[in-house]
Amino acid sequence: MVLTNADVDHIAGLLTLREKTPFVIHATAETLSVLAANTVFGVLDPALVDRRTIMLGAEFSPVEGLTVTAFAVPGKVALYLEGDAPQTNVIGEQTIALRISDGAKRLYYVPGCADIPDWLVTQLSDGDLVLFDGTVWADDEMAVTGTGGKTGGRMGHIAMSGDTGSLVRLAGLTDCRKVYVHINNTNPVLQPDSPERAEVSAHGWTVAQDGLEFRL
Amino acid sequence: MVLTNADVDHIAGLLTLREKTPFVIHATAETLSVLAANTVFGVLDPALVDRRTIMLGAEFSPVEGLTVTAFAVPGKVALYLEGDAPQTNVIGEQTIALRISDGAKRLYYVPGCADIPDWLVTQLSDGDLVLFDGTVWADDEMAVTGTGGKTGGRMGHIAMSGDTGSLVRLAGLTDCRKVYVHINNTNPVLQPDSPERAEVSAHGWTVAQDGLEFRL
Repeated sequence: MVLTNADVDHIAGLLTLREKTPFVIHATAETLSVLAANTVFGVLDPALVDRRTIMLGAEFSPVEGLTVTAFAVPGKVALYLEGDAPQTNVIGEQTIALRISDGAKRLYYVPGCADIPDWLVTQLSDGDLVLFDGTVWADDEMAVTGTGGKTGGRMGHIAMSGDTGSLVRLAGLTDCRKVYVHINNTNPVLQPDSPERAEVSAHGWTVAQDGLEFRL
Repeated sequence: MVLTNADVDHIAGLLTLREKTPFVIHATAETLSVLAANTVFGVLDPALVDRRTIMLGAEFSPVEGLTVTAFAVPGKVALYLEGDAPQTNVIGEQTIALRISDGAKRLYYVPGCADIPDWLVTQLSDGDLVLFDGTVWADDEMAVTGTGGKTGGRMGHIAMSGDTGSLVRLAGLTDCRKVYVHINNTNPVLQPDSPERAEVSAHGWTVAQDGLEFRL
């Protein structure tokens, strides 16, 4: 198991895997420290569940035949660690992306990303498959739909639409499969017949769904 | 919401109720302190989720028309708080039972109970409905089924069968509906055609299932 973030949607599932199933958790020192500070994760028996520290940029192999390299992407700390004035677009160990390879093909997993600077576009450009943060279509869609006051940016997620959005910023990635993941229930691309779904499809994106499988 | 224990099966669901749904958590000071010590429960926005301390023996009314009185039953602290040599049969704020009444009828909710002393039998005797700890059929069933090394007693749960078990100890409660809840997946009463199911049925017990409703 590789954790890319300490937010609840990334770690709460660990509490339903107990007990007595051996596995390994790979996460940054920062994310592991969050697990350690929350005693409830003590249900993961240390005798069975090994916790290994990810060093950013250093390749590791959680499964035979696959190597993983983690790197920081713009993001923020978990909601419950925010404090009064959180920074929502920082580079550190809070939010990471994964480059996964079998030696021949490359997959990027980027479920949370607050911004897409040029270096990130360059980084992703050798990917055969990119799974990218598809939380919101529009930065203000939660306010518009009356479901919350926060923008996508405030939650640490770049929108799909707009000049700085992932559709435009990653349009140059034409030689790979692009899949939106981590999609909020306010995002209209979840509606198969929506104009937004048509637009992301026209840009070559797939909207992830349960059970999706890829062969590279 | 009323919490009777701080173990993962009682509190992890709180993490999937976020965000922005207002509700009230009632729990003992000890259980509330566990939530407070685990920062992950900070996803429950204090502006929307009120945490109220249950005083054992003191009636409170979480819902109009219903009163609840909590009392301690034999049990233990949550798995992840056990330490090296946990006491598995103590009376305190770790494990509580609820007496719920509309003024006319009485329901007891006892999802965890390590032992059934005489005073508890007496306490439950005015119940119109008793929902009781049905974790294991036999104290050693996890070892016997090869699913784990712990006994029911080690986990803080009295077995159904045996001289000290709930079938025998609560046999005198003939004027109420008795329902087993909190049933472990090793418990043979979950099999509708098992002799153990037949035995609990013959003793007047119902085995709880999803969607069960009662009218008292």
